[in-house]
Amino acid sequence: MDIVIPIYDDFTALDAVGPYEVLSRIGGRVRFIGREAGPVRTDNGMLTVLAEASFAEAPAPDIVVVPGGVGTRALTTDAAWLDWLRAVHATSQWTTSVCTGSLLLGAAGILEGLRATSHWLELETLRQYGAEPTGERVVEQGKVMTAAGVSAGIDMALTLTARIAGDDVAKAIQLAIEYDPQPPFDTGSVEKSDPVIVEAIRARVAAREAASRERAGV
Amino acid sequence: MDIVIPIYDDFTALDAVGPYEVLSRIGGRVRFIGREAGPVRTDNGMLTVLAEASFAEAPAPDIVVVPGGVGTRALTTDAAWLDWLRAVHATSQWTTSVCTGSLLLGAAGILEGLRATSHWLELETLRQYGAEPTGERVVEQGKVMTAAGVSAGIDMALTLTARIAGDDVAKAIQLAIEYDPQPPFDTGSVEKSDPVIVEAIRARVAAREAASRERAGV
Repeated sequence: MDIVIPIYDDFTALDAVGPYEVLSRIGGRVRFIGREAGPVRTDNGMLTVLAEASFAEAPAPDIVVVPGGVGTRALTTDAAWLDWLRAVHATSQWTTSVCTGSLLLGAAGILEGLRATSHWLELETLRQYGAEPTGERVVEQGKVMTAAGVSAGIDMALTLTARIAGDDVAKAIQLAIEYDPQPPFDTGSVEKSDPVIVEAIRARVAAREAASRERAGV
Repeated sequence: MDIVIPIYDDFTALDAVGPYEVLSRIGGRVRFIGREAGPVRTDNGMLTVLAEASFAEAPAPDIVVVPGGVGTRALTTDAAWLDWLRAVHATSQWTTSVCTGSLLLGAAGILEGLRATSHWLELETLRQYGAEPTGERVVEQGKVMTAAGVSAGIDMALTLTARIAGDDVAKAIQLAIEYDPQPPFDTGSVEKSDPVIVEAIRARVAAREAASRERAGV
């Protein structure tokens, strides 16, 4: 099984590494790929991950997982990205996203008429692409699966594993990564959070988005 | 604030990236470092991450987060690693680990007489280092904090954030990464899992450990 995770400058590392950590245990191969092979920098500039291959070297993967990050905003009009996504979606078994990765699926026309999710900050943006936003953590629509923000990719990947390899394999992987979550607070969704905190995050992400667009020159 | 995550060949990516994703949002700097700067390969050989600096360039970090992975087994007798860990622990504000990263803290003598945790497969190994194993997900003992397997690093990092920067900052980061976990199964701990699955994982990890030792030549 050929599983690819396309990355780009200003992606969010956990969006990609959560699903990688789960899906790499199914028994296939997971590849981080990029428009070109080479080093790719995360959204905060603190981590560099290697894209092992280029889009050209991954013309027909079985599974695609598109991570999110402020860098997605510069790619929603990028022909190389959108053409590649459309091409691989034509033959994929599963086309999936985490967080604002769904904006790229949307821009490629893949979410037209589907229910879908994204990071809570960008949920309404999905309407631009003809999708129906939902606050669910993992949304499955035919072979398209979208996950909510950042950490939701772990839940999505376990759900996907159950579909691909069966419940027992997914349960074993959950134990292998000891995913028995016990966050110290219960503030992981907008509904559970203080509005002051929500607005502070909105402002901070808007600033990071603007900086990312500037770096990308769009 | 200087936060460092020391990595090594055959580390587990999520052990490192979970805490990175949380701690990078506090406002300091997170650096992935290695014995030497340069590319470092994860435990399954599918992902390469860049160590941005060497141990020599990080002589006195404020916070150390040691990730786990089968590669730890070759390092519990590695003088460069153990000397560096002892040296940074002498001046750190927090010395922490995820998963089998605690075996390295143990081998460096840092867990002597302390309660500590690790991946469930290696919990009893902690006794070799004079530590008292506990099945808790996050264990805080003075300035030493250890986390259980792989995904527990996210819970640990949020707990650590609350200690360093206050509950409100930790809550905001939890919302920013939308950490409202909803795993599709409830099999994230040994107690909740089928014994057949537990033994299958034990065998698989033992094989990976042996392969890692062989690659490291120990």
